[in-house]
Amino acid sequence: MITLNINSNKKVEMIDVTGIIKDKLREAKVENGLLLINVPHTTAAVTINESADPDVRRDMINKINELVPFNDAYKHIEGNSAAHIKSTLYGSSECLMIEKSDLKLGTWQAIYFCEFDGPRQRKMNLKIIENSS
Amino acid sequence: MITLNINSNKKVEMIDVTGIIKDKLREAKVENGLLLINVPHTTAAVTINESADPDVRRDMINKINELVPFNDAYKHIEGNSAAHIKSTLYGSSECLMIEKSDLKLGTWQAIYFCEFDGPRQRKMNLKIIENSS
Amino acid sequence: MITLNINSNKKVEMIDVTGIIKDKLREAKVENGLLLINVPHTTAAVTINESADPDVRRDMINKINELVPFNDAYKHIEGNSAAHIKSTLYGSSECLMIEKSDLKLGTWQAIYFCEFDGPRQRKMNLKIIENSS
Repeated sequence: MITLNINSNKKVEMIDVTGIIKDKLREAKVENGLLLINVPHTTAAVTINESADPDVRRDMINKINELVPFNDAYKHIEGNSAAHIKSTLYGSSECLMIEKSDLKLGTWQAIYFCEFDGPRQRKMNLKIIENSS
Repeated sequence: MITLNINSNKKVEMIDVTGIIKDKLREAKVENGLLLINVPHTTAAVTINESADPDVRRDMINKINELVPFNDAYKHIEGNSAAHIKSTLYGSSECLMIEKSDLKLGTWQAIYFCEFDGPRQRKMNLKIIENSS
Repeated sequence: MITLNINSNKKVEMIDVTGIIKDKLREAKVENGLLLINVPHTTAAVTINESADPDVRRDMINKINELVPFNDAYKHIEGNSAAHIKSTLYGSSECLMIEKSDLKLGTWQAIYFCEFDGPRQRKMNLKIIENSS
């Protein structure tokens, strides 16, 4: 298992981790298999989406903040229920393919660590399962 | 494959299944690998979120019921379209890491079977893939 | 890795790909393992939901279009931010079980390629990981 350390800078933020993950994969020298990504937090998530235009991220963040507002009739005393809800809607894990020693992503796809209750020091776990067959 | 039997007691409910899953993992005696969780229903789901304060679950349930109300302009004759929509938004599968014979979860993370059209008798399938490398 | 070619016919559409995937699995002759499905697009997704009544899909599409409308205060110049947001809410990957050479799905479950910015020519990647243990 490989653990990435991620520092978020905003309350809600999508941080592109594609490059770091590809570096780790290169070091692991696995030709064929799958990559499992787990976010071990309950107010953060991982998602795959566009990297070309930063306005896509901005629109995504604005809409999720609108659907799940920071303040509402929440009961949780810590005051971050919105972040917990967003974490579940986005999801805390992703599973991707390793083909010819490279991560198999679509042309426009990037992997994002999604912060919903920052800024904080966060972790992201990676695990490679080699395909033996 | 291991099948868990789960009885839900409410229409919408998040049932903590972390303990049962950890027990099954212990019995399987797998040191290193991944655990795949599949919910074989279309009006239920699986998610990972906080276990410490039950108010988090309450806030999550209230918000998803608000975003996807039970009654709306739905056409599906069974009347449970809201549950189908929630199932897709939460997702019916999770993939987690097994490290040193234990499930790798964050400090505050628990695994929840999410009932959206209960009460019902439900199932949850687990499969362990051992890491041979 | 197996790549499926999918042609969508509408702007938003859920295309049942269960049959094609089961055929590919039969050809692969893998008795036990897991099937990873990745959608390599940022305005499409994959989900598992009911196949029996087409009204379920209609209700799902209507509700997601209502929650994330095509036109809003989006900044992304291509005008398809709604599709990017839906892609993340639905998710671009699924991981399923292969048991006794068959895909382990619930009675009412089908696998859907979800188009959110069609009509387009799309792809869907499948990868089988054989269970060696």
